[in-house]
Parts: sequence; C-alpha cells; structure tokens
Amino acid sequence: MIQSTNNSKEIQKHLVIVGGGFGGIELAKRLRKTNLRITLIDRNNYHTFQPLLYQVASGGLGADSIGYPFRMIFRGQKNLNFLMTEVQEIDSASKQILTSTGPVTYDFLVLATGSTTNYFGNKLLEKHAMPLKSIPEALNLRSDLLQEFELAMRIDDPKLRQQHLSFVVVGGGPTGVETAGALAEFKKFVVPHDYPGLNASEMEVRLVEAAPRLLNGMSEHAGNKAIKYLNELGVNVSLNKIVKHYDGELIQFEDGEELKCKTLIWSAGVRGQTIEGLGPESVERSRFQTDEYLRVKGEEDIFAIGDVAGLISAENPKGHPMVAPVAVQQGELLARNIKKLVLGKNNLEPFKYKDMGSMATVGRNRAVVDLSFWKFGGFLAWLVWMFLHLMLLVGFRNRLVVFIDWMWNYFSYERALRLIVRKYEESPIDKAT
Amino acid sequence: MIQSTNNSKEIQKHLVIVGGGFGGIELAKRLRKTNLRITLIDRNNYHTFQPLLYQVASGGLGADSIGYPFRMIFRGQKNLNFLMTEVQEIDSASKQILTSTGPVTYDFLVLATGSTTNYFGNKLLEKHAMPLKSIPEALNLRSDLLQEFELAMRIDDPKLRQQHLSFVVVGGGPTGVETAGALAEFKKFVVPHDYPGLNASEMEVRLVEAAPRLLNGMSEHAGNKAIKYLNELGVNVSLNKIVKHYDGELIQFEDGEELKCKTLIWSAGVRGQTIEGLGPESVERSRFQTDEYLRVKGEEDIFAIGDVAGLISAENPKGHPMVAPVAVQQGELLARNIKKLVLGKNNLEPFKYKDMGSMATVGRNRAVVDLSFWKFGGFLAWLVWMFLHLMLLVGFRNRLVVFIDWMWNYFSYERALRLIVRKYEESPIDKAT
Repeated sequence: MIQSTNNSKEIQKHLVIVGGGFGGIELAKRLRKTNLRITLIDRNNYHTFQPLLYQVASGGLGADSIGYPFRMIFRGQKNLNFLMTEVQEIDSASKQILTSTGPVTYDFLVLATGSTTNYFGNKLLEKHAMPLKSIPEALNLRSDLLQEFELAMRIDDPKLRQQHLSFVVVGGGPTGVETAGALAEFKKFVVPHDYPGLNASEMEVRLVEAAPRLLNGMSEHAGNKAIKYLNELGVNVSLNKIVKHYDGELIQFEDGEELKCKTLIWSAGVRGQTIEGLGPESVERSRFQTDEYLRVKGEEDIFAIGDVAGLISAENPKGHPMVAPVAVQQGELLARNIKKLVLGKNNLEPFKYKDMGSMATVGRNRAVVDLSFWKFGGFLAWLVWMFLHLMLLVGFRNRLVVFIDWMWNYFSYERALRLIVRKYEESPIDKAT
Repeated sequence: MIQSTNNSKEIQKHLVIVGGGFGGIELAKRLRKTNLRITLIDRNNYHTFQPLLYQVASGGLGADSIGYPFRMIFRGQKNLNFLMTEVQEIDSASKQILTSTGPVTYDFLVLATGSTTNYFGNKLLEKHAMPLKSIPEALNLRSDLLQEFELAMRIDDPKLRQQHLSFVVVGGGPTGVETAGALAEFKKFVVPHDYPGLNASEMEVRLVEAAPRLLNGMSEHAGNKAIKYLNELGVNVSLNKIVKHYDGELIQFEDGEELKCKTLIWSAGVRGQTIEGLGPESVERSRFQTDEYLRVKGEEDIFAIGDVAGLISAENPKGHPMVAPVAVQQGELLARNIKKLVLGKNNLEPFKYKDMGSMATVGRNRAVVDLSFWKFGGFLAWLVWMFLHLMLLVGFRNRLVVFIDWMWNYFSYERALRLIVRKYEESPIDKAT
C-alpha cells in the first residue's frame, strides 16, 4: 500500500465542527486531504439551503429539493464522521463538548451553529408567529397557509373570512421581501383558479418593516425597487412600523393601529445560536466574539464562523452580516489556518470579507442585484438570481428537480406542491420540531 | 349567452362524494358535464397515489410527487366544490351527513372512504407498529428508518445495535413485498457508502407472512418469483408465521420465536373505513354491503365504491379485492348509473369487474406481472410496472419529477430524499396525523 502524502507519523488531531450550514460544510470539505480526524455535528441529518425556504413554504419547491443529507455530501471523505446530536455545553477546560448523546473530546473546536429567529423576548409573539428558518418551519407555514384557505372557503362572514386571508410578513430583509412576493403570486395566480367563490381581493399580503426602508443590507436603489415591485404585485408595504403585540388573532402596532390576522410570519430578526459554557468575554449580542483569526476570545483552540461569529473590526463595528458568503469565506480561511496550526505554524491569516454583492427576488421575473460596480433590477437580475441559486444548491438531483419545478411554475403559473401534511391545530405546538 | 346543452330547467341535484381516492375522483371527473352539483369531501387536501408510498418511505421519491391537490385536479370543473373536512355520521332519514365543520345535505351520497390499516384489535401492536397507508405515515417511516441508522452509529454493543437495524415487514401482499425490497436495496446500495463503520450485514430485512405464500391476490407463479427475487436481495422471508405480540422492542410470534426489533412495519391487513349512522344490514366485515348497482343495502340514495364497498356475488363471495382498478371501474359505472337516475331512468347497469391483472415490484430491475393471458417476471415486468405507474400518476409535474427521480435512483444507486423532518420521539404519537 502506498502511504498518503500526509505525514502519517504526526499525531492525528481531532477537529469537531458544530453545525453543517454553509460555513461548516465549506470548512469540512477543504480539510478533506489532511491528517485531521473530523467530526461534524448537527441536530439535523441534512444541510438546509435556507435561501429557498420561502419557496417551500409557498408551494413552489419540495422540501427534499432544498435539503441534502450530510452523509451524501461527505460520502467518500474518509477523515470525516457525521454525528447527529444536540450540543448542550462546551467544557473548554477538559477540551470536550457535552451533547445529548454523551461527551465528545476535541483538539480544535469550530462553532458554526448559525442563527435562529429572534423575537426580542416577546414570548407571546414567539408562541403565535410563524418563523421561517428551517425546513419543518417552512412545511408548517405551507400547511398553515393552505389551511387558512380551506377554512375561509367555509366561512360566510366576510369579516371573519378576511382575518383568515390576511398574511402579515414582519421584517423587510430578503426573506421578508421574498416571502411577501411569493404570497402575492399565490394571490394572483392560484387563488382565482383554485378557490372558486373566494374573491382574490379578500386576500391581503402586507409587509411590515420597522426601518424607513426595505432590504437594509442592500443599496437604496435595491430597497426602492423592491417596494416598487411589491406594490405592483399588490403587496401592502408599511415602513417605520413596529409590531408591539400579537396573540394569534390581533396584531397591535406601536403606532396604535390594530389588525386582525391569523397568520403573522416573523422574519424581523435573527440572533446567533450560541452554546453555553465559555467565559463571559466570549459572547456578546448573541455571537461568539472572535479575533481576526476567528478564534473565540479567551480560548485557544475554539473558533467560530458564520452567523454565530462576531468579528468586530474597524470596517465592521457591528460584525459581519449574517449571510452565506461570509460563512463560506470564513470556512475557507479557517481551513487554511487550521492546516497551519496542525503543522505547528503560527503565521495565521486574518479574515477579510470580500463582499461580492447581494440579491433578492420579488415574484416572477423580478429581482434586485447589488454588485460593487453595478446595481440593477428586473428580468436580468431575476435570471442571475436563479442561475446563482441553482449553482449553490448541493447535489445534482436537487439542482435538476429545482430547475424543473422552476420552469414548471414559470410556464404553468401553478404552485403544485400544496400538500397539507402538518395539521393546523398542531402547527403552533409542532413549530420547533 | 348560450345556455348549456343540459336541460337547465330540471332541478339541480346535489351529489356528495366522501373520499377522493381512485374511485372518488374517477366518479367526479366523469360527472363533469352534467347538471349535478357535486361536493367532494376529503380529510386531506390532496389525492394520494398509494402504490408509491413505500418509495417515499424509503427515500426514493418526495412526498409532493405522489400527492396532488384536489383543487388542481378539479380546477375548471365548475359543478364541483371541494370541502376538506372529516365526516362523522350519516343521517339518511334527513338526507344529510354530519361533518366536523357542520352538516351537509345531499340528494345522492357516494361513500368512497377507502380502507385503513387493520390491526385486528391488537392495541399494543397498533401503538408500536408503523403503518404505511398515508403520506404522513410514509414520512414517519422514512424518518424512523434514518434515525435508527443514526442511533446505531453511536452504539458500541453489537447486540443492541442489531435491534435498531432489524426491520421486520409483516404482510406479504404487494405493499409488504415492495417495502421489503426497497429496504433491501437501502441495505445493499446506501448503507455501505453512507454509514462507515457499520457493517451492512448487521441490517436485517425480514418479511413475515401468515399464509403459506406471498402475493396472495396474484398467481402462484408471481408469489414464487417474489420469494426468489427477495431472497436474492437478501430479504429473509418467513411464511406461515404470525405475529402475536409487539411492544416496540420485542416481537413474539405464535410459533414461540422471539425477536428484538425496534421497527415493525405493518402491512398485514386493511379494512374498510366505514362511517356510522346507517342500519345494521348496511355494514359487514367493515365494508358497506351493496347490491349489484353499488347501492348500499337498505338505502335508496346512498352508494359505495372502492375498498369500502362490499359487493358480494357468486363470482366474488368475499367481495372484490381492495385495489385501485376495482375502485376506478366502480367509479366509471356509478357515473353512468347516476346520470340515468338524474334523468329518472331506472335501467341501471350492474357492476362487472374486468380484472386486467396485477403486478408488484421487487427492487431494481425486477417485478412480477399477472395478466389473464400471460404471467411474467423480471426486467420486462419491471419496465411495464414503471410505465403504468407513471401513467397513472396525477399531474404532469409529478410524472416528470417521478421519472427523473427514478432515472436518478437507477443510475446513481442513491436514495437522496433522506431528510428526517419528523423526530423519532414523536413518531409513535404523531402516527395518526
């Protein structure tokens, strides 16, 4: 047998990566040809392509098309072991993490746990709003949406009916804009055909944003275009508007307005999913504070990447945006640095974010794209958006089926993936699964 | 405006169809161009293509590909209204049915409620076994299967590990045979690649049948071929074997054998899903007893079709087999008869079942097909099976995506649709959703 080119005499170090999002899988893949033993831990058995969750929720794509099993991603990567479990605590003194299936020791630990929905402490809102950060949540929202229509079909009182047909999306970031656009298309193309007797105008899609503009992370050009496109689709956009209270029936806004509505989709905030156990200096504003090498403050062998990493610098006084490209670039950089550490080198590279731009789509045919040198919108932007998202999907099968579903949706104006598989009564309880 | 060719002066009758399986949708479609007002009631918002449930369970197809929303099937059928609700009772004296959303009156009522899993009164079995009659149940089984593997990967004790990797399918009808075949393929093609460290031989797939042969509804030739194919795939087939007791951990067979096993898939029996309220002569052995015109005994305006209809005749002393072709043919016939009844004619046609044959598939490349004039197996049978199932699927999008997934599965040997979206701890409780 020919030995691998790695020096097999060096002691094999154990790298534990917690979280298989964009950052975690990038890092793991790039350490394929090393002598490291890698354990990837995730609470799910699949990677979620979060940018398309709203299309699962609105019946345009199947859940299986935007999730891909880790075991298939890492098939053939001999130095990686996947472990499906929930991490409970880090014990950095003894270099181990405690999980729901027992302790795991590490030499290097990378925290790539991503972010979760932030309700800013509003428990009632948390109980009644629909989040959209995971595949089960997208399926819950899909079932909820379709059940509201089935219910409305049986209600004679127009006022009560309208409460079931009011969909309020809170948060004007990309998820909120894209979800509102998809709901507006459902109103325009599906409701008139499939719910005879319901007047499509009874369905209201409203997008509410606390800031004075949409798409805060993008250019003003993009924010204005998004409002224009949403208005053309019939979405009622409210800026400078803050939700104060929601009990599942009635929304109270800070400006005094009240609105009866059964479905409130909450995409107004995310926060890092930190893990307990490290010193008080390690976490601030729900993110692991790191130095420029992504090393968690106060720790030697623990790193953080992606949404959960808070790397404060002069250019990024609030940390980097919680988006996939940051996670991917941090995964790339950390892979290089860990290779150096394993070899005993100390010339680590600091992280520098190369912002390639950002984009959001608004219904069929339209999107906004911000590049450093060019900001544009409309049909071309939409084609760019589609192409890039197809390329970023993991797995050829998923790319192919998403492509077919998109063509199908585009030419038929249908949304065929409309099975209610999670019953209405359960959706609030079942939310966290 | 030109009037429709129907005599619009006749009083419009209301036909209520309970159940949107193969029989119910066939009947409803064929009454499209009549003056009847039709209400189709189902507890789900989609039609389920039951013959492919086992492929959803084993990760070969997505749930969305084998379910199709009723509202899309009947889009454009102006005389049909869909109602998603649960029927609780029939009150034939006042010609109405009671549903969970209120009463519905009818002029003609057709009961097409299909069948449900029959545990023959064994409550413990019902609690712990996994059924496979609906899409949520298929998703539960898929999640359970994959979670057993994730668990097994963490267990050091080989004996305990094997309990998690023992899958016992009870019932040697087409569902049992096809499920066992799919599990055997998972063992053969997926386990060696995706679960490093697990020895594929630790996974045991066992098919248990109470009768002395498999595929009781088919020819002896088919039954023998199925055993041969299953054995070649590594399935352990036991005939003349009856499950007495199962508590989620231990199976006790009537012959005294005991087997520790965490997953028992129950496909050993179905029974008609009858509804309460009719006279005692109307139901026997869980089926609505009908005359040769499919009229429920003791009733004037109530009919039954499909699995729930028990039409006893000299040729079929036990009633017709509970299969899709019977339901479709009964739907066709009843459509003709109801048209006559509406016109006041009494020359109803009696039901005669034209048995076109039956088929079952066993893993890749193999199936058995029984036609009246030819019984064959192997690759050709498998192609025929695939072609017919593709044609019978509802909706072009679903046909296309199923075709692509089949090609993908065939050439890649993968089963990519492996998301655990229903958590282990919940699956037994969640079973009925």
